[in-house]
Amino acid sequence: MQGKKTIAVIGGGSWATAIVKMLSDNEQDKHIYWWMRNKEAITSIRTYHHNPNYLSAVEVKIPAEQVTDDLHHVIDVADLIVLSVPAAFLIGSLQNIKPEQLKNKYIISAIKGIVPEENQIVGDYLQSTFNIPIDQIAVISGPCHAEEVSLEKLSYLTIASASISTAEIFSSCLNTRYIKTILSDDIYGTEYGAVLKNIYAVASGICHGVGYGDNFQAVLISNAIREMARFLASVHPIGRDINESAYLGDLLVTAYSQFSRNRTFGNMIGKGYTVRSAQLEMNMIAEGYYASKCIHQINKAYQVDMPICRAVYAVLYERHSPHIEMKLLADQLT
Amino acid sequence: MQGKKTIAVIGGGSWATAIVKMLSDNEQDKHIYWWMRNKEAITSIRTYHHNPNYLSAVEVKIPAEQVTDDLHHVIDVADLIVLSVPAAFLIGSLQNIKPEQLKNKYIISAIKGIVPEENQIVGDYLQSTFNIPIDQIAVISGPCHAEEVSLEKLSYLTIASASISTAEIFSSCLNTRYIKTILSDDIYGTEYGAVLKNIYAVASGICHGVGYGDNFQAVLISNAIREMARFLASVHPIGRDINESAYLGDLLVTAYSQFSRNRTFGNMIGKGYTVRSAQLEMNMIAEGYYASKCIHQINKAYQVDMPICRAVYAVLYERHSPHIEMKLLADQLT
Repeated sequence: MQGKKTIAVIGGGSWATAIVKMLSDNEQDKHIYWWMRNKEAITSIRTYHHNPNYLSAVEVKIPAEQVTDDLHHVIDVADLIVLSVPAAFLIGSLQNIKPEQLKNKYIISAIKGIVPEENQIVGDYLQSTFNIPIDQIAVISGPCHAEEVSLEKLSYLTIASASISTAEIFSSCLNTRYIKTILSDDIYGTEYGAVLKNIYAVASGICHGVGYGDNFQAVLISNAIREMARFLASVHPIGRDINESAYLGDLLVTAYSQFSRNRTFGNMIGKGYTVRSAQLEMNMIAEGYYASKCIHQINKAYQVDMPICRAVYAVLYERHSPHIEMKLLADQLT
Repeated sequence: MQGKKTIAVIGGGSWATAIVKMLSDNEQDKHIYWWMRNKEAITSIRTYHHNPNYLSAVEVKIPAEQVTDDLHHVIDVADLIVLSVPAAFLIGSLQNIKPEQLKNKYIISAIKGIVPEENQIVGDYLQSTFNIPIDQIAVISGPCHAEEVSLEKLSYLTIASASISTAEIFSSCLNTRYIKTILSDDIYGTEYGAVLKNIYAVASGICHGVGYGDNFQAVLISNAIREMARFLASVHPIGRDINESAYLGDLLVTAYSQFSRNRTFGNMIGKGYTVRSAQLEMNMIAEGYYASKCIHQINKAYQVDMPICRAVYAVLYERHSPHIEMKLLADQLT
């Protein structure tokens, strides 16, 4: 891909804001467009150059007119499209977009979740709904909290694509002084890993909420990475080292960090909040809640032994007591 | 091994105190002896049934006369001996003990370190210095902070021995309501893993001290476990899953926990303390400091690629700047 690229970022949340920052700080000359639904936020960003709702300390350095709610325009002008909306809103966001509008575009998913209506990871959804060839799709994975990007703390992103040259195109737009990119050809493993880690972060929060300590947490995470390895080996059996940053690192940053909304959500559940009241209180979507149900469905076909995911599902969707479920889980950990 | 066992715990620190508590709370009928050097502590424990210096909330439930500074007596009466002194003090503690006094005894090392004078893990040292057959030696590994044992938080211990029946003997003495034991035959991997994780906890502290955040920490630990896997595969090549609790779990609890003295030590170094002043300030031994030098020596024979251990060694022993060394390290991580 030659010449000056045009990149569109779809989504107005903290991760989208972090991505806009990385793209702007990256030295490659490019056009950046930013789409979001919220008109007030757009006006505010155009006027004050800061997103009023997320990472509001970040200075937005792109021209005012390129921040817009006109999705069709943004997609039409873009060569590269970065999807960064919650998985649960993806279908709604793209509902008026036709497959031909996305033809020959490169699409990178920064979504860490499963499209709930379809029980598909984003890569599969883009292929089946928009006929986008797998070689034109990539995913961005952490370990990377948006909050630390805004602080310019050194972070590593894994860019995965079935086509390494596609991964390289995105990688060359994201590298900065504080962002190192790692290339991977494991798009399925990277996506499923990013989905599972949110469930494990919820599990980690539940355990903390019911009173388990650091010793138990370490055992939980050591079991979680083995559970993830088993699932990925079953769903997409290629040679991978599950301890690479995109899998283990991403799990660690989510399960151990104070920033993690999934962990916070789990913690509230462990302390006795209902799912509904925890969601209301947080005013944010914990992807792990939806992911739990999707993985439960998907795993019916694979039948992988996943005691941690099963326990989280039982607590979130079958109203099992977190105390009892975590005690039963503890008996299965090694 | 039949009949009522007599167990001696050697050492007066927090981990020794936690072990005495576990042995007492374990339901198997047994005699427990506890040796420590500090006479004032012994008097206090005999009188008040609490260790005045470590985990002082723990009630010591063994008979007063069985807490003693008479090492020869304690070793003579014991069938099982638990070593729980800092690695740097092991030779000094056992200097008057003859090999024949340890004949036919089972010895378990709760020491997470290398005997510095000999550059040997404890299992090797016991074999070479006291002619103890490898089948009579076991090691206890975490993930397990003594502080959480004192709070009776559910914790998992791995008991490793070349002889599984030896591991079972110790396991049957340590299981309690809040302690689950896992058996392993990988005594070398378990010991070296426990040593390495202290170095990685120092690294983690240094990185925090110089200003890296959670995103970087996750990448560091994901690289650390791969580095550990490479080293163990070279030193003792057996089939092992490095993500089991004894390896990854133990690394996580040490590198992520506020209780970790190695992490605290590293953090002070990262913030600019000298080694000497950090040690004085902490008034505790960070095993990772000694381990760093020992592993550096041992790895001369194996030549395993260990960028994290090398960086820690350079900072602690070659007076390299933590800022520069961690920046160079960051360029090597993936």
